[in-house]
Amino acid sequence: MKSHGFPAVARLALADLHASLGSPVSESMNFLNEIAHRFPDAISLAAGRPYEGFFDVDAVYRYVETFRAHLMATLGDETQVNRTLLQYGRTKGIIHELIAEHLRVDEGIAADPESIVVTVGCQEALYLTLRALRRDDRDALLAVVPSYVGVHGAAQLADMPLLPVKDAPEGIDLDDLADVVHDARAAGLRPRALYVIPDFANPSGTSLSSGVRQRLLEAAAALDILVLEDNPYGTFGPEPGAFEAAGPPTLKALDRAGRVVYLGSFAKTGIPGARIGYALAEQPVDSGGEADSDGRGGTLADQLAKIKSMLTVNTSPIAQAVIGGKLLENGYSLRTANVRERKVYQTNLAHLLDGLAARFPAHRTPHVMWNAPTGGFFVLLTVPFTADDQLLEHSAREHRVLWTPVHHFYADARPRNQIRLSFSHLSPQEIDTGLDRLADLIHERTQKVTDVDQARQGSTA
Amino acid sequence: MKSHGFPAVARLALADLHASLGSPVSESMNFLNEIAHRFPDAISLAAGRPYEGFFDVDAVYRYVETFRAHLMATLGDETQVNRTLLQYGRTKGIIHELIAEHLRVDEGIAADPESIVVTVGCQEALYLTLRALRRDDRDALLAVVPSYVGVHGAAQLADMPLLPVKDAPEGIDLDDLADVVHDARAAGLRPRALYVIPDFANPSGTSLSSGVRQRLLEAAAALDILVLEDNPYGTFGPEPGAFEAAGPPTLKALDRAGRVVYLGSFAKTGIPGARIGYALAEQPVDSGGEADSDGRGGTLADQLAKIKSMLTVNTSPIAQAVIGGKLLENGYSLRTANVRERKVYQTNLAHLLDGLAARFPAHRTPHVMWNAPTGGFFVLLTVPFTADDQLLEHSAREHRVLWTPVHHFYADARPRNQIRLSFSHLSPQEIDTGLDRLADLIHERTQKVTDVDQARQGSTA
Repeated sequence: MKSHGFPAVARLALADLHASLGSPVSESMNFLNEIAHRFPDAISLAAGRPYEGFFDVDAVYRYVETFRAHLMATLGDETQVNRTLLQYGRTKGIIHELIAEHLRVDEGIAADPESIVVTVGCQEALYLTLRALRRDDRDALLAVVPSYVGVHGAAQLADMPLLPVKDAPEGIDLDDLADVVHDARAAGLRPRALYVIPDFANPSGTSLSSGVRQRLLEAAAALDILVLEDNPYGTFGPEPGAFEAAGPPTLKALDRAGRVVYLGSFAKTGIPGARIGYALAEQPVDSGGEADSDGRGGTLADQLAKIKSMLTVNTSPIAQAVIGGKLLENGYSLRTANVRERKVYQTNLAHLLDGLAARFPAHRTPHVMWNAPTGGFFVLLTVPFTADDQLLEHSAREHRVLWTPVHHFYADARPRNQIRLSFSHLSPQEIDTGLDRLADLIHERTQKVTDVDQARQGSTA
Repeated sequence: MKSHGFPAVARLALADLHASLGSPVSESMNFLNEIAHRFPDAISLAAGRPYEGFFDVDAVYRYVETFRAHLMATLGDETQVNRTLLQYGRTKGIIHELIAEHLRVDEGIAADPESIVVTVGCQEALYLTLRALRRDDRDALLAVVPSYVGVHGAAQLADMPLLPVKDAPEGIDLDDLADVVHDARAAGLRPRALYVIPDFANPSGTSLSSGVRQRLLEAAAALDILVLEDNPYGTFGPEPGAFEAAGPPTLKALDRAGRVVYLGSFAKTGIPGARIGYALAEQPVDSGGEADSDGRGGTLADQLAKIKSMLTVNTSPIAQAVIGGKLLENGYSLRTANVRERKVYQTNLAHLLDGLAARFPAHRTPHVMWNAPTGGFFVLLTVPFTADDQLLEHSAREHRVLWTPVHHFYADARPRNQIRLSFSHLSPQEIDTGLDRLADLIHERTQKVTDVDQARQGSTA
């Protein structure tokens, strides 16, 4: 080949890169991260991060030691223990049996450990599942919107359209679900699964009642779709009484027809910095007559593991050991492990709701409304004006308070008049200061809206 | 909606799942993992795993402590240190500056830390890059084959066809590269990048000379493609003399035209169980006139970070701390940190080559040939018969020795008469035993081939 010398440095065009990169979702995630960075002194009612007050690096070492001792007791040989903790490892992970115990103890779920794939956070579990379910352009995902930004992102990255299902006071409009599925099929699409957070959803804070859960499972079976149950916040409901359950059972615990793929997260209940999640995917996969070489037909978990081997190979066993040790030290119960954290979140939630009521009495500000979740990390606030990114920027700059415009959870650019408030990582004092600043913003805007209304009425009068 | 009761448990069909799952590559990876599992007592000349003799869990704690002290010195505040190690974190990672120093010290690469994305092993870095470069059905990847199984997997998972480029004694046939690119363009495809392991390639063990590296970079510029340089084994060449370089410079160090995306791995030089890798992707990305909100146009690394935020959110900071501490304790040099390991690999390599020469003298077994890499983990052996999965199974069962059929590195099912031998995790004694067993197999097969030949000659005589 003849050389023509080096041309100018290689440049790439965004238009030639994956479509997810130019999407509103991708811009959203960037904008939200970046504004927090630009206004570090603002109080953030935006970040849905776990409380940091109990963070303890020394506990991390102890957890790894606990898990190491457990391995030593199981494997009986230091070479094997070191190999398990430090070498390349099993694609599906090494704490699957401990996770199965945790699911039994905390959620009443009887899980086959072989159907658990330990992942790099719940986000990887979600992506593996969507990538597996995406055969061609016809395959689509369903989700109640507004919904977690990360599900929009994962669907776009997996080249799967996300078909929105209507929200409702009970958490999902099941009639709309059926309509969306039927319409999609009529249009030649294949809706494969419904993504849902049944407990203290992000961003709405809503939980599904036991009755709605049952009806949702029946609908999934009747419509022949899977349900992807994401459960990061279920542990953070009201403290159960001695004879009371912690809340309604998970969809997976109620699932008699094998419809539910359970997506687990330890980011809020374990340690965020471990980046450990998992998928429990017990659905049998028919390989067209060919059984696996070990004579068993595989499960969806086996297929997720194959994808994981091409994506991240395996999840860091050191990071898994951190969560494994925490599970071992707490009798497999993260409800037990999170008594202090649950108290913080419940106190903060009550403080936020009281603070809203004090600052926005119904008779003076009838157009400022909010819901009242009983747990989780989020409250949804409705305001009498459009709450978009421009207003957020103004709020950050002039009022030094951050919050999340709800349009980010719709994956379109259309601004709405709702915002998500989060309180999980704040102190009650910070919540007070944040609400004071938010109230200033809302009064300033409401005044403007009123002025504009009066001007309009004046001009049309 | 009317409920019809629960139908039978949900079953999925492999034919309805992502195409990568039914591919020969996916079956390959499964088969290779699974056979090692079924014959645990066989000596494995198959596994390309790092040596375990120096594995030390206590060193892991020490590395994290070293990194923690470094954070304390940098951030000056325990709350910030705990947040950095245990909270959700920066998508691009927290050891980017240490990695940039490592690249300067060990490879003479001047890297902008902001262009580094820390990933879950090198495999995630590869997938992020392929996903970013895959806009539509026209986009394709180039790779010298035989090539690392994981690049076939990542390309399939990213829905990118892999166009094979011919191997050559010097490591790549550059004329064939040009032909493949031109033919692909004529067929309406867009070859975006060439994947290559320039140092001690997997599976061939071949290294590119400095001259070939220069010509490869010129070809990439002339053909307007990127080069994805994967460098897991570069540290494991011959011990450099006091005034000698460790080997030819990396492509990235020679790259004046911004053609190279450098994919880094700490699995062999750091600790496999940390699962830490990275991409260095400095290419500017033109977003069509819109600059980023901070006023700078972004780089490919910024786009990879966006994809990562939808895939795994961020890499475990605890796992990053392990590698960060190891870098800090060794003056950022993994060449320094791996003096012992390099000696093991070089000794094993010499032992394997000597062992082959002793067992297969050219005058007695002229059809058994092998190459002689000067470093890395692999040697390529040519045998006078087809070495397929069936023979591997026979070898495992009857001769208790494992090796890797080279057809797995071609991503097709067509068996070939080459096998990959690896020696990285063995002792010289195990290498001897493994080679004795392999020699038994080869003599048994060669005898069969000779018998068949004689029978054929007899029948045609």
